[in-house]
Amino acid sequence: MSDDRFDVTTDPALRSWLDIPSGSDFPLQNLPFGAFRPPGGGAARLGVAIGDRILDLAAIARSGLLDRALPDASVVLGAATLNALLACGPAAWRSLRARLSELLCAGNRELRDDPVAQRAFVDRATATLVLPFEIADYVDFYSSLEHATNLGRMLRPEGDPLLPNWRWLPIGYHGRAGTVVASGTPIVRPRGQTKAPDRAAPAFGPTRMLDFELELAFVTGDGPPLGTPIGVARAREYIFGVALLNDWSARDIQGWEYQPLGPFLGKSFATSLGAWIVTLDALEPFRVYAPTQEPPPLEYLATSRPENYDIGLSVELSSAAMRAAGQAPQTISRGNARGLYWSMAQQLAHLTSNGARIRAGDLCASGTISGVDPAAYGSMIELAWRGARPLQLVDGTTRAFLEDGDTLTLRGSCDRAGAVRIGFGEVTGTIVTAQSTD
Amino acid sequence: MSDDRFDVTTDPALRSWLDIPSGSDFPLQNLPFGAFRPPGGGAARLGVAIGDRILDLAAIARSGLLDRALPDASVVLGAATLNALLACGPAAWRSLRARLSELLCAGNRELRDDPVAQRAFVDRATATLVLPFEIADYVDFYSSLEHATNLGRMLRPEGDPLLPNWRWLPIGYHGRAGTVVASGTPIVRPRGQTKAPDRAAPAFGPTRMLDFELELAFVTGDGPPLGTPIGVARAREYIFGVALLNDWSARDIQGWEYQPLGPFLGKSFATSLGAWIVTLDALEPFRVYAPTQEPPPLEYLATSRPENYDIGLSVELSSAAMRAAGQAPQTISRGNARGLYWSMAQQLAHLTSNGARIRAGDLCASGTISGVDPAAYGSMIELAWRGARPLQLVDGTTRAFLEDGDTLTLRGSCDRAGAVRIGFGEVTGTIVTAQSTD
Repeated sequence: MSDDRFDVTTDPALRSWLDIPSGSDFPLQNLPFGAFRPPGGGAARLGVAIGDRILDLAAIARSGLLDRALPDASVVLGAATLNALLACGPAAWRSLRARLSELLCAGNRELRDDPVAQRAFVDRATATLVLPFEIADYVDFYSSLEHATNLGRMLRPEGDPLLPNWRWLPIGYHGRAGTVVASGTPIVRPRGQTKAPDRAAPAFGPTRMLDFELELAFVTGDGPPLGTPIGVARAREYIFGVALLNDWSARDIQGWEYQPLGPFLGKSFATSLGAWIVTLDALEPFRVYAPTQEPPPLEYLATSRPENYDIGLSVELSSAAMRAAGQAPQTISRGNARGLYWSMAQQLAHLTSNGARIRAGDLCASGTISGVDPAAYGSMIELAWRGARPLQLVDGTTRAFLEDGDTLTLRGSCDRAGAVRIGFGEVTGTIVTAQSTD
Repeated sequence: MSDDRFDVTTDPALRSWLDIPSGSDFPLQNLPFGAFRPPGGGAARLGVAIGDRILDLAAIARSGLLDRALPDASVVLGAATLNALLACGPAAWRSLRARLSELLCAGNRELRDDPVAQRAFVDRATATLVLPFEIADYVDFYSSLEHATNLGRMLRPEGDPLLPNWRWLPIGYHGRAGTVVASGTPIVRPRGQTKAPDRAAPAFGPTRMLDFELELAFVTGDGPPLGTPIGVARAREYIFGVALLNDWSARDIQGWEYQPLGPFLGKSFATSLGAWIVTLDALEPFRVYAPTQEPPPLEYLATSRPENYDIGLSVELSSAAMRAAGQAPQTISRGNARGLYWSMAQQLAHLTSNGARIRAGDLCASGTISGVDPAAYGSMIELAWRGARPLQLVDGTTRAFLEDGDTLTLRGSCDRAGAVRIGFGEVTGTIVTAQSTD
């Protein structure tokens, strides 16, 4: 592997002294960061997922076991969000992760024999996972060629499905940071203005075209000062890690509002973020070349290095009827992020190319990740082709868009022969009936 | 005045025991909130502008003089930003302002005779004004009929200048909160992708169409929980106040990137916010009816009350050559916000109509405020009609767009017979040469 970031923490031979179930999303090589409330409630605290447990970072920071790895460990890790750690930068991120790996590695007894260990592990199933950091700015890109092409075919059937700018720059827009919610948060069906093609006037009411979007998102540390772009070759140094993201979308609201300034209320009602941020270091063994770009990108976006990640993705739908009948959730999409046209490094270089600064806690999502195969489409509007090919569910019903009671669950994991599986957990949400104005 | 918000603090008969220059932006009836660094530097602190001075809120809070008006006054007002005060809500905002008015009113000796008064006033000219609050989400609307019509005429000369949705809803989009900067911050000319119509490929370089946009923006307190819209009749209760805003725009970058997801890098390099937030209570005597809306808005946007504000606005340009020659800045636009088609209340009701929540520190801008008269156009692209009618400057040069060294200054004030003048101060910024990638 031609690899400037390889470190021992990804070594497949590593084993923990903890018992980690085979096939777990969270082996010793992963150590994703998140935030949780312990069983019984109380303030949110930071943790790292390991097997079926969460390692309470505040607890072990207080014990002094992290002092060498991270200055002010008990302050930075005693916070309720990851923002202070994000602001520490890549050297600190790497040093902390290496130390956690060391403490959890078979043969090491520092944590194992420390009295703190008794209180430092929480059963993951009993914890409530919360938003891992306060979102600074939230940007959503549009980086899947297949998704952009599918949407173009549906919305502009007469023309070229891709607009002229799409292959030249990673199209993106700012979303609403304040409505990014933790996995598990119920999604209230939004109301909004929509206009039927055969009506003269719009109407206001609950969306009838509620959709999900299968995405990954990266979170950043602090960038250089305002006015200073980040070069594409250095972009990964500013990225802490990656999480699952569901960009819920109301297609009918979006369709009426989005000209000329882009999506607004069709997207801003909720965006669900996965609880676990998998570090770029943990993903390093799965870094791959992106598809060849044609035309070649301009110099500020050009890179000759592998900048994509081989991350398998899936979407499950479970209707209220399926749950009542004891039926398992139905997998409605299976894809992979490796085929994304624009990489995270290119997204970040583009985002800052005008001098815009990034802050610790900036969240940048990929846009819907769709594959060539229709079974790998990453949104309902593509899977059911805008209602033309409704999805058949195992409860006997069909879906063009999401219905109240539907639970959507996105999953992701890196699985490759010779490497240890690295998982993202899940991001899930259930649609609940629209509320009236208060 | 049919007025649910009138209070004694706007009484034109009120005088302060402080000497306030005639025609000041900041009489006793204004008391706008901001943040500043004292002469000699040090941490940012909160203040209220009064005449040529700033009243240091932390200093008088510590003295106990505000205890009855605001719980935890020394904590809330001892912060470096207004966010904690914004989170206190309208009853606290009003109570604090009434108490400050009382303390500064002729006849009152509580502050005047308190030893703290010696340290509680800072000469405004010697203070450095900083960003008054941390921006949560930043939304920019597009609420001037004249501006939207002008842009439509230039960009779509063959069709209806207004898109079909424009008269039905206040069009808006999310901007970049992290690049909102304080008045006075130099504006680095952004680089970006642009494509000339006669070229097959885009190029990357400094924008050649750098523009300003004359706007007002309101800042909010916390809203109801996610999923709960704010009705238009109650929207003003969530708005703390209003400031000047310049939404710097690179028209060539924006023109190439904005389809289909809206403006991104053409706007995200910098947005300048005025230092002083004039409270809605101070603006209350200047509340007026908005122009009649046709078609009538849908019920969730309908209001029979005066929801606009009579605020005079101006834009001054000063080139480097003008400053070198000792020439005064040239006024290039004079307008008024009273003609805005969509009011702040309608903007906020629309923004939350899908259940999106607002947070203390949300910033919502009006969009460029243009009038019917070409002398009241609020952007360079309109004033010079996309270069077709370049502006003649007093230094002998012309402008289609902004050049390096140009200083733009926006001002606003409410002036009406029988009322005391309420001013916004200014928002200013100077264009500096593009930097190269770092």
